[in-house]
Amino acid sequence: MRVATDAPKDALSPVPLTAVTIEDRFWAPRLRVNREATIPHAYAQCEETGRIEAFRLAWRPGMEPRPHFFWDSDVAKWLEAACFALATHPDREHEALVERVVALIASAQQSDGYLNTYFTMVEPERRWTDLRDAHELYCAGHLIEAGVAHYAATGRRTLLDVVSRYADHIGGVFGRAPGQKRGYCGHEEIELALVKLHQATGDARYLNLARYFVDERGTTPYYFAVEAAERGTPGHFGGFMDHMRDSARYNQSHQPVREQDEAVGHSVRAMYLYSAMADLARADGDAALRAACDRLWQDVVGRHMYLTGGVGSSAANEGFTGDYDLPNETAYAETCATCGLVFWAHRMLHLDGDGRYADVMERALYNGVLSGVSLDGRRFFYANPLASLGGAHRQAWFGCACCPPNVARLLASLGAYVASQGAAEAAVHLYAQGSMRLNLAGEDVRLRQRTDYPWEGRVVFEVGLGRAVRFALRLRLPGWCRGPALRVNGEAQDLAACAARGYARIERVWVDGDRVELDLPMPVERVYAHPEVAADVGRVALQRGPLVYCLEGVDNAAHPVHRTLLPAGSPFAAAFEADTLGGVVVLTGSGASLDDDGFDARVPYRYGRPGLRTFPVRAVPYCLWDNREPGEMRVWLPEVQLG
Amino acid sequence: MRVATDAPKDALSPVPLTAVTIEDRFWAPRLRVNREATIPHAYAQCEETGRIEAFRLAWRPGMEPRPHFFWDSDVAKWLEAACFALATHPDREHEALVERVVALIASAQQSDGYLNTYFTMVEPERRWTDLRDAHELYCAGHLIEAGVAHYAATGRRTLLDVVSRYADHIGGVFGRAPGQKRGYCGHEEIELALVKLHQATGDARYLNLARYFVDERGTTPYYFAVEAAERGTPGHFGGFMDHMRDSARYNQSHQPVREQDEAVGHSVRAMYLYSAMADLARADGDAALRAACDRLWQDVVGRHMYLTGGVGSSAANEGFTGDYDLPNETAYAETCATCGLVFWAHRMLHLDGDGRYADVMERALYNGVLSGVSLDGRRFFYANPLASLGGAHRQAWFGCACCPPNVARLLASLGAYVASQGAAEAAVHLYAQGSMRLNLAGEDVRLRQRTDYPWEGRVVFEVGLGRAVRFALRLRLPGWCRGPALRVNGEAQDLAACAARGYARIERVWVDGDRVELDLPMPVERVYAHPEVAADVGRVALQRGPLVYCLEGVDNAAHPVHRTLLPAGSPFAAAFEADTLGGVVVLTGSGASLDDDGFDARVPYRYGRPGLRTFPVRAVPYCLWDNREPGEMRVWLPEVQLG
Repeated sequence: MRVATDAPKDALSPVPLTAVTIEDRFWAPRLRVNREATIPHAYAQCEETGRIEAFRLAWRPGMEPRPHFFWDSDVAKWLEAACFALATHPDREHEALVERVVALIASAQQSDGYLNTYFTMVEPERRWTDLRDAHELYCAGHLIEAGVAHYAATGRRTLLDVVSRYADHIGGVFGRAPGQKRGYCGHEEIELALVKLHQATGDARYLNLARYFVDERGTTPYYFAVEAAERGTPGHFGGFMDHMRDSARYNQSHQPVREQDEAVGHSVRAMYLYSAMADLARADGDAALRAACDRLWQDVVGRHMYLTGGVGSSAANEGFTGDYDLPNETAYAETCATCGLVFWAHRMLHLDGDGRYADVMERALYNGVLSGVSLDGRRFFYANPLASLGGAHRQAWFGCACCPPNVARLLASLGAYVASQGAAEAAVHLYAQGSMRLNLAGEDVRLRQRTDYPWEGRVVFEVGLGRAVRFALRLRLPGWCRGPALRVNGEAQDLAACAARGYARIERVWVDGDRVELDLPMPVERVYAHPEVAADVGRVALQRGPLVYCLEGVDNAAHPVHRTLLPAGSPFAAAFEADTLGGVVVLTGSGASLDDDGFDARVPYRYGRPGLRTFPVRAVPYCLWDNREPGEMRVWLPEVQLG
Repeated sequence: MRVATDAPKDALSPVPLTAVTIEDRFWAPRLRVNREATIPHAYAQCEETGRIEAFRLAWRPGMEPRPHFFWDSDVAKWLEAACFALATHPDREHEALVERVVALIASAQQSDGYLNTYFTMVEPERRWTDLRDAHELYCAGHLIEAGVAHYAATGRRTLLDVVSRYADHIGGVFGRAPGQKRGYCGHEEIELALVKLHQATGDARYLNLARYFVDERGTTPYYFAVEAAERGTPGHFGGFMDHMRDSARYNQSHQPVREQDEAVGHSVRAMYLYSAMADLARADGDAALRAACDRLWQDVVGRHMYLTGGVGSSAANEGFTGDYDLPNETAYAETCATCGLVFWAHRMLHLDGDGRYADVMERALYNGVLSGVSLDGRRFFYANPLASLGGAHRQAWFGCACCPPNVARLLASLGAYVASQGAAEAAVHLYAQGSMRLNLAGEDVRLRQRTDYPWEGRVVFEVGLGRAVRFALRLRLPGWCRGPALRVNGEAQDLAACAARGYARIERVWVDGDRVELDLPMPVERVYAHPEVAADVGRVALQRGPLVYCLEGVDNAAHPVHRTLLPAGSPFAAAFEADTLGGVVVLTGSGASLDDDGFDARVPYRYGRPGLRTFPVRAVPYCLWDNREPGEMRVWLPEVQLG
């Protein structure tokens, strides 16, 4: 059934994280806070809550806190983030902590390779009996990702070997051979982790195991029914899952993945599964799997994605609902799911290099991912609503603490998303002042970006080369930009001729000191949602460059945000304000609201449209809301014609 | 603390249910369906689900279904509805069934007067130990209301005596004397029931007990903490209630009722409590209690009421949230709560005769109550959203089946809401073709209404009298009407002179054959919500007379309702269509929607406002939606200016 095809000749590969530096005034301070505040904060939370201690395997029945079967994954994601930070910013103290945690995790491995604190201590008799709910392979996946990141950051195989042994153990338990369990995890994650383990070790068994988990999913007989029957007791989620109308759709096991064409169920699970599918489609040149990825991509970004890149609109299933069902106040848009969309988009981008994937990656990073963490790095949004009457605020931690370390590991590895390279081609996806070192046509190439992106749209690239070399430089032309312009060494380029699939492509013999200027005009744009998005009918949002803006109560105290309409066609001005939110471009323009004079206090309704008054409004980037006084916020505002 | 004041001299009293007939083409068919379909259907459901059988007290541990502690109330409400129907429409077969159920209920009474199937059979050792959650006094209240209705309908004291003995038992258990429990119910209901029992029996002890329950609520020491400590085990709602942020606010026991000024918690509980407070304020001329009622009224109708009269916007607590928090798609607006608002409004109206209470009563009856039951009388809405993408539909019954019998008993007693009488004054609150018999200034007075209300606003009253008599006739001038006109025997009346507090008042010596013509113009009105109602900013609704309209998918198949905007200022026409929904006035006008041509399939967002196209739309009364093909519905539509 699988048709192997060659990967495209010009296939791009991700660049190593350490090949890129980011030295801008947008991301660099956030990445520093991520290293200096978020990662230590997350470690402290893991320690305080017993998650670190659990790896000592000292818990005994009756002791509090009782470990939870999620816990290993939180520590693993923290460790992965810590390793990424270590890779870009070596620090002896930080490294010592990483090594202590690595040693602690290694010490919890059982003699057969098994490594899960919960099922070693709390329910040892239930190992591998509740794949649907107990997150056992999910935790394994995160440990594997941590092992790969630790190896990449330090060159030390300590944890890589540990997780390889664990993966070997898992490979013995699961599969299609006689005596093996035909299972897969109720929370996808191990699939993409095994692909990474294959990339790090070169061992094809891990890719095979990833393929098995992906392809076995949703086949008949249905494994989660088989395991429930064998177990004879409710799963760990018990009644909760039984109340889910369809737990198979919840975890994307309702049909074989190659047949899926609709994003359903829990959104983080979906994003991780689709990421693994894209990995395997690329590794195997698997056209059928690729086609499934394309269908799912089109469904997710075309019908289920918020303007902010958030996906999974419903709290009830932490996931997908109907097409275009994108309510604002109740938007779930879990931070982890938006991180997952970045992971998936990055993989899709490496399948065919189309800028539309990078557009989504950028949309999610600058908006729905970054909103997940406060400016001080110590408070987090789990859900990311697009409107709030004032009740939504970041929290220091969560009982189910998936989001904080997820955003931490993504930010710590941001450099890896900036560019990709092929044999003789570099592609720049994200613009941020800094530099990158690539290897193109066998030569070391330095590319320096000078820009104030995303505050300004001008980006200058300086090429650093030992000797002249021919390669293609592809620069992304963001989907949000309506009039890009490009000069090479001062000479204007004809984008109609050199742009394709979202990138300008300049192939030439480059010499040291060559200079490329990309100009991405950034007017304030009024955004309209597809008419099928019922929640946004009659509404408008503001965007400038990649940043979605919002009105926040603290900036608009005189006129409550929930009452504010935007007059059609009235202009907005953009200006950088150094003292606002650490330095941001603020949008200023006119808002309007209905008079309440004509209302009888007896009833909040009246006939005939009340008069309108206009007043100044200020908008700030959505990703930075709730960093000042608590209050309300709104992205989509009703539009009104004056006069 | 309580200051007794005289009730106002011109205080109105409700008219007996049997004094009013309704013979119109709006309500009369619905009341017939209520008698012939809903009441038998509800009985069948009570029988099928074991609710009737429970009164045989034959359940033993292990048998299925296990009775629920709600069940008695469902049967009691059914019986109350059945008795109301019997009062207005005697029927031997129906009466025989009523008597069988009465006998069955009587047979379940214990020798000490106690009468609760659940706590007699299922948990006899836990009688009166969980007032917060177990609805024990709530069930008693509904039995009492049934007993009063049975007595009124048949003149037989069978059930009245049974519930009086039960009330005597309750009066022994609860109170402030030594050895008594200082408790009250977690779900208010018994308070208003005891007032009715007092009215039916003349026994002051029942009014005293009602007063005790109302005034004890929310005092210190806090009873629900006391009983939990004494019991030592979780309440019947256990974890659910513990997860409620504040269960005291949930059941309005967070402070003494006289100090309350904000509607909080479960909305049905609140409406029943406030109804009892209004009853006692009237019975006792209690100014402090009256002041609390006024404050709560202003809060509920001024800041928490949907255009349809629905109250309690949140499903999470089935109740009240923040001021002006009136989301449309997720509107809970439980049918029972809207019934409760009618009960309360009717009582407030009898406190001071102001038309604003009748306005709310009418708003709720014609919209949010009537929406609770299908045209065929066999399907029910529990929640009454003001917008649906197609997922909300009436159901045949509910596990928690409070709403169907509640709407059945309210409709079966509708005549009692039409008018009130004082010593020499009649007040007509609701317009519906039919007649009423009143006693004014010692004379029998017949008032005949001729009207096609609510389809047309002309109402003609014909006075029938044995001899000339002086009395005042007050006719409500609905708050929705902007230009009422009045003639007496053809002579125009100066409403500026004779109208006050929502009624035109004509005091004169009336003679047989006098004729009063009230003209209430009913243009199609565009309604705007108070600017604080965030969900409706930029939106408009349509109303004609007392009826709120909606767009339903089945009428607007060519242009999905969720995409539809209403062009500002475009006219709507109203025309009666005999073939639509059993005969309704349909509104027709123009809608508009954004083109989707300009959208890239890759992402559901674009810059610049898409073009608008216009098309015809049809609107039908909200109360009748979801009676044809299932589909979407919307009351509040975004308004847009064309051109």
